[in-house]
Amino acid sequence: MNAEIIIIGDEILLGLVTDTNSAFIARTFAPLGIAIRRITKVGDKIEDIIGALQQVSPDSEIVITSGGLGPTHDDKTREAVAAFLGTSLQTNSAALDEIKSAYARAKRTMTDANAVQALIPTGADYLSNQLGTAPGIKFHKNQTTFFCLQGVPKELESMVKHHVVPFVSNKAGKEIIAYRTLRATGIPESALYEHVKEIIKNFSDQLDIAFLPKLAVGVDVRLTTSKRMLPETAHALIEDAQTKFINKIHEKYPAAVYAFDDDTMENAVAQLLFKTKLTIATAESCTGGLIAHRLTNVSGSSAYFMQGVTAYSNASKMQLLNVPEELIRQHGAVSEEVAKAMAEGVRKLAGTDIGVSTTGIAGPTGGTSEKPVGLVYIGLATKKGTQVIKPLILPFPTDRVTFKERSSQMALNEIRKFLISL
Amino acid sequence: MNAEIIIIGDEILLGLVTDTNSAFIARTFAPLGIAIRRITKVGDKIEDIIGALQQVSPDSEIVITSGGLGPTHDDKTREAVAAFLGTSLQTNSAALDEIKSAYARAKRTMTDANAVQALIPTGADYLSNQLGTAPGIKFHKNQTTFFCLQGVPKELESMVKHHVVPFVSNKAGKEIIAYRTLRATGIPESALYEHVKEIIKNFSDQLDIAFLPKLAVGVDVRLTTSKRMLPETAHALIEDAQTKFINKIHEKYPAAVYAFDDDTMENAVAQLLFKTKLTIATAESCTGGLIAHRLTNVSGSSAYFMQGVTAYSNASKMQLLNVPEELIRQHGAVSEEVAKAMAEGVRKLAGTDIGVSTTGIAGPTGGTSEKPVGLVYIGLATKKGTQVIKPLILPFPTDRVTFKERSSQMALNEIRKFLISL
Repeated sequence: MNAEIIIIGDEILLGLVTDTNSAFIARTFAPLGIAIRRITKVGDKIEDIIGALQQVSPDSEIVITSGGLGPTHDDKTREAVAAFLGTSLQTNSAALDEIKSAYARAKRTMTDANAVQALIPTGADYLSNQLGTAPGIKFHKNQTTFFCLQGVPKELESMVKHHVVPFVSNKAGKEIIAYRTLRATGIPESALYEHVKEIIKNFSDQLDIAFLPKLAVGVDVRLTTSKRMLPETAHALIEDAQTKFINKIHEKYPAAVYAFDDDTMENAVAQLLFKTKLTIATAESCTGGLIAHRLTNVSGSSAYFMQGVTAYSNASKMQLLNVPEELIRQHGAVSEEVAKAMAEGVRKLAGTDIGVSTTGIAGPTGGTSEKPVGLVYIGLATKKGTQVIKPLILPFPTDRVTFKERSSQMALNEIRKFLISL
Repeated sequence: MNAEIIIIGDEILLGLVTDTNSAFIARTFAPLGIAIRRITKVGDKIEDIIGALQQVSPDSEIVITSGGLGPTHDDKTREAVAAFLGTSLQTNSAALDEIKSAYARAKRTMTDANAVQALIPTGADYLSNQLGTAPGIKFHKNQTTFFCLQGVPKELESMVKHHVVPFVSNKAGKEIIAYRTLRATGIPESALYEHVKEIIKNFSDQLDIAFLPKLAVGVDVRLTTSKRMLPETAHALIEDAQTKFINKIHEKYPAAVYAFDDDTMENAVAQLLFKTKLTIATAESCTGGLIAHRLTNVSGSSAYFMQGVTAYSNASKMQLLNVPEELIRQHGAVSEEVAKAMAEGVRKLAGTDIGVSTTGIAGPTGGTSEKPVGLVYIGLATKKGTQVIKPLILPFPTDRVTFKERSSQMALNEIRKFLISL
């Protein structure tokens, strides 16, 4: 089964907004055996949208459009579809009712502009939108079913799940492309590649294998079946390859694979904390609250996360975390000794099983030759004692946010490795 | 001047990675008067890459490719360029030296795989890469100059800045497309549109105007010159439109426009804090550290940010922030009273000018009919007293991370409005 995607919006061609919708649709379709054959990006002009609709290949069974359904003058998808179908726009009363109730629930006043969103081409269906006010549009032409969806990613994603997936699941062919991503951290891409080269060779007829470096936070290794196959064959192949890759990687780099596919480091840590019923508190300096933010992104995190301190000033390190002033004076706030005292301090303060700390130089200013930008100490205090990790400084400069992301990733990975060791 | 972009990688077509590189290139090129005429996305197969290179239009003067320069077997751009030029690959000794020094600096062992990255087609130049080990490749064919750059966004961005921009700045035509994005928060898209409809009409011959809603955090209004014009004319037009839009918006929604273009709410707050020399501390429950993270993303934030507390447990609210146990028992942890006590507590604890707090129900579990998922109280304690804001609950469900983003955005906006009022 073939599909096409049409992304509508000047903002995409101008690069003001990054198109994440086609990636989401492709990811959703692959396991259903639907191949994306073309992605077309057009601006907001009605003739360009009509042109893109007309150029859809007759043997594409599904077309998704994204964008142009909002309430403002630059939203032209409704008119383009009507022109493409040679029909006119009519207010759909069920769609209008839905828009009205959304406004009533929000206790907001509905404007004339919003009523425009209830206009649907004659002969087309409206699609209910749970997350916003613009309904989608669904229609058939020849052998193709068109779904016109919103440009806002969360809305589009919800519409794909509720309207498109049930429709295509009934239609899709039996053979699928299967894939799995192994997410590894703490190994450079080239070293990882050298280490697994033999296994790649063994699977070269059956799998496409790609290495996707994520600057400063790890490498994703993606295994994809190189052709369509029956679901059970595809899944068995992927499972077998996954096991062989992980065994090989962990031979030299224990526990380096922290998650699969879209899963995150924070969720890997959360699942281990749920399992061990241990609690945690954070004392962050250079990561500025990012570790606490990531740990609390997981639903149910109040079971393990008790409190976090972002101790930016020296005063707050001393006052809240009980770091001796002498230690800061002697070794500096960015030091192994202070990282240790911060981790132990927050563990005691919060009465948790684990205390984790960071102190470092995020930059771009504040570095010295002795303590350069990029330096970070990560402290981990547990009942087994306190360890301080000093990761290698990257050989190239990173910006402030990348530095925070990398440091938080390493701190979370240290927590994960400790929990696995139990 | 015309440009094309070729994005290389199976991961893009499969939707496993979102292409942000073409948006970055388009954004960089627009103010230089360079129009992106086509974006082509191909997989990792060498024949597809060669095909895309051959299909470049003869009157495109610049082509940027992204991806396929890594050290592993699935990186085929080097070979494809050699085939396209009808030449062979040779080790470039200057490129090899650069790769060796990057490894030496990082105290890491260079592998055979990395040496592959120094292979450059005969007759092409290598481009120095400050952020990684893979050099870029530059070559000319007919009237077109090709830049083959990395797929990792930070590396590509650095290469575009260091190699491509200086090259095209000397070549680009005089007429440009100019644009400006006004970032507003606290107003629904349709209400904003109704309010500025007249001004849109006045500029309809000269500007393309688009409304880009950002789920739960605001609406961006983008003003773009509808045709190329001399830089001074384009900038004057944009400045004039910007003033008129802001005046009109602020007539009804004071201070709703918080930033321009790529600028962020946290930077807007930071600039006001730098200017007023005031200090701040955070007491977060439902936002879990995100406000502290955002406030410390700005370089120099240690001047205003003293400390943050993520008080997830009731114990930490009482112990660190001095919230009376009685208050939590009587009103619950998610209440106006507790938000007020938290903001005042952290302001006193940290001795700062401003204390900001959040307490709410992030979901997806933990909601009740009286206190549903999405409820949040934001406290702001200053020398003028303490106010607590209770934003409207959205009429549709949001996920946990969206809830945190929206709540942090509103809290930062409250700080901003307070600082403006001084």
